[in-house]
Amino acid sequence: MDYDQRYSDYRRIIDEHLRQVLVGGDPDSLYAPIKYILLAGGKRIRPVIVILSCESLGGSREDAVNPALAVEIFHNFTLVHDDIMDNADIRRGLQTIHKKWDINTAILSGDAMFALAYKLLSQTNSARVKEIFDSFTQSAIEVCEGQSLDLDLETSFEVGIDDYIKMISKKTASLIKNSAKIGALIANGSDEQVQALENYGFNLGIAFQLMDDLLDVVADSVEFGKSIGSDIINGKRTFLLLKAMEKVRGKDKEIIEKVFAKDGLDLSIVAEVREIYFRYGIIDETQKMVRFYTDTAIKSIEALPDSEARSMLVWLANKLCERRI
Amino acid sequence: MDYDQRYSDYRRIIDEHLRQVLVGGDPDSLYAPIKYILLAGGKRIRPVIVILSCESLGGSREDAVNPALAVEIFHNFTLVHDDIMDNADIRRGLQTIHKKWDINTAILSGDAMFALAYKLLSQTNSARVKEIFDSFTQSAIEVCEGQSLDLDLETSFEVGIDDYIKMISKKTASLIKNSAKIGALIANGSDEQVQALENYGFNLGIAFQLMDDLLDVVADSVEFGKSIGSDIINGKRTFLLLKAMEKVRGKDKEIIEKVFAKDGLDLSIVAEVREIYFRYGIIDETQKMVRFYTDTAIKSIEALPDSEARSMLVWLANKLCERRI
Repeated sequence: MDYDQRYSDYRRIIDEHLRQVLVGGDPDSLYAPIKYILLAGGKRIRPVIVILSCESLGGSREDAVNPALAVEIFHNFTLVHDDIMDNADIRRGLQTIHKKWDINTAILSGDAMFALAYKLLSQTNSARVKEIFDSFTQSAIEVCEGQSLDLDLETSFEVGIDDYIKMISKKTASLIKNSAKIGALIANGSDEQVQALENYGFNLGIAFQLMDDLLDVVADSVEFGKSIGSDIINGKRTFLLLKAMEKVRGKDKEIIEKVFAKDGLDLSIVAEVREIYFRYGIIDETQKMVRFYTDTAIKSIEALPDSEARSMLVWLANKLCERRI
Repeated sequence: MDYDQRYSDYRRIIDEHLRQVLVGGDPDSLYAPIKYILLAGGKRIRPVIVILSCESLGGSREDAVNPALAVEIFHNFTLVHDDIMDNADIRRGLQTIHKKWDINTAILSGDAMFALAYKLLSQTNSARVKEIFDSFTQSAIEVCEGQSLDLDLETSFEVGIDDYIKMISKKTASLIKNSAKIGALIANGSDEQVQALENYGFNLGIAFQLMDDLLDVVADSVEFGKSIGSDIINGKRTFLLLKAMEKVRGKDKEIIEKVFAKDGLDLSIVAEVREIYFRYGIIDETQKMVRFYTDTAIKSIEALPDSEARSMLVWLANKLCERRI
């Protein structure tokens, strides 16, 4: 089966439904920025996971599609607000909302997207609507906690790998975990099945974030869509930087500490830091971690009934691990 | 019956439950500002309306209290984000969150409050949880739309009374309407009963906002808790200002247009504008509007079964109309 083609089909379904639910909307001052960000593309990983998780347990795509949109809209809301907090200029090749409009517009459009997400979440033909709501809400709280931990991490002197894993568990993995869980609940899965898909989503989420950190250092910049080394130049406390803080010694340590302290960083430091990451085996170690979490994700759903949807979840995990999506 | 005393009792119940649900919370960087705003007091009108509406249809306070907290937490979330947008320094006699901490903290703590509201909304013993969620979500969307209309109103040249009523219907009245509706749903009210309480809340919400506009001009500043005339100095497009734009002529018109255009306003203009408002009968007209919407609210619940809770809803409407609460 041509999984790439099928993935494109799912993406197209998400995009089409998004376009439909965004028709109209008054006042335009609120809805124009919402349409701008939501129709600017994106990989649509989370909504596809909602649908595939539902289908893997025999549920229908029709019942899953609105909650899938809810998750995507919520994810985009977090991007809009995070971009204000990070003072980011560009998102998906376009100006961020707070740059194109202003901060007030970005705050308020984000808030409305959060509410809109709940509206779509409710539009499903499931008897387990309370569990679906609770799963979504739990994730929303964790994403906020994760973002707060991330902001803390950037200014704290004492930061270890454990703090980092806790942060990405909430900021990134929680929503992917709950995307899978919501799909499973819509399909009225058993407790074991719901748990299996939650584990899939959580481990995939961790792998996904570690891969993101890795790609900043090793990716082809055209393919990745953001400048290589930007995390290094910004002194972002990634998995690689925190590992390096633990492992490197002597002159290398001074360079890494300079990045950690965000101390007069410029483009010239990128090559030095990359070389250190390679020489100390940090690239290799991160790749192994990505593989480990990806394999754990895949193993989590081994016991589910054999289906095209399950096969596609396995394919998706491997694909994200190689990040060619 | 001593309604003032009973209202204080309800308020205390809300405050105590709020304190309980806010124990703990990690990270502190996220939860400290949430506790700061939520435990700073407030009239607690919306949560009291949730509980009274539920009780008026024979429902229990226990089933209503968590959704009541949800509404209060949501309302406070809107204050936190609106205060950023309005660049407000003070709220309930305390520094606003974005002043005491920073804008990022205010954005993120607000977002977490929104999510927390949904968590509490779900904690009720009602079979009609989907309707409760939908009512809450509809209100959340309308509040965002109302805030966006309000921002538009402040910069638009063509603004009439109709635009103003549409704006406050969404920004202020929607949440009060849905507070009453949620209480009615928890009590498993009939369609007519739910509608009656919705009408009560909506009309009360309109009266409440008109009264707020009026008090800026006529209140005793110590009692009202904000400086008199601040809407005038800020050129805020209130009901009174928009009425004046319709009615006044000649030299008076020039003064009102100066306020409308936010053109070099200072304290000296307050007395002139107040005098115009009185002379053209705008104060009187606004008072009559407040009375009309208050009476409509009270009439909406006339057909409900006689109960202490219903009597107290009537008392509350009259009290807010006199604004001695």
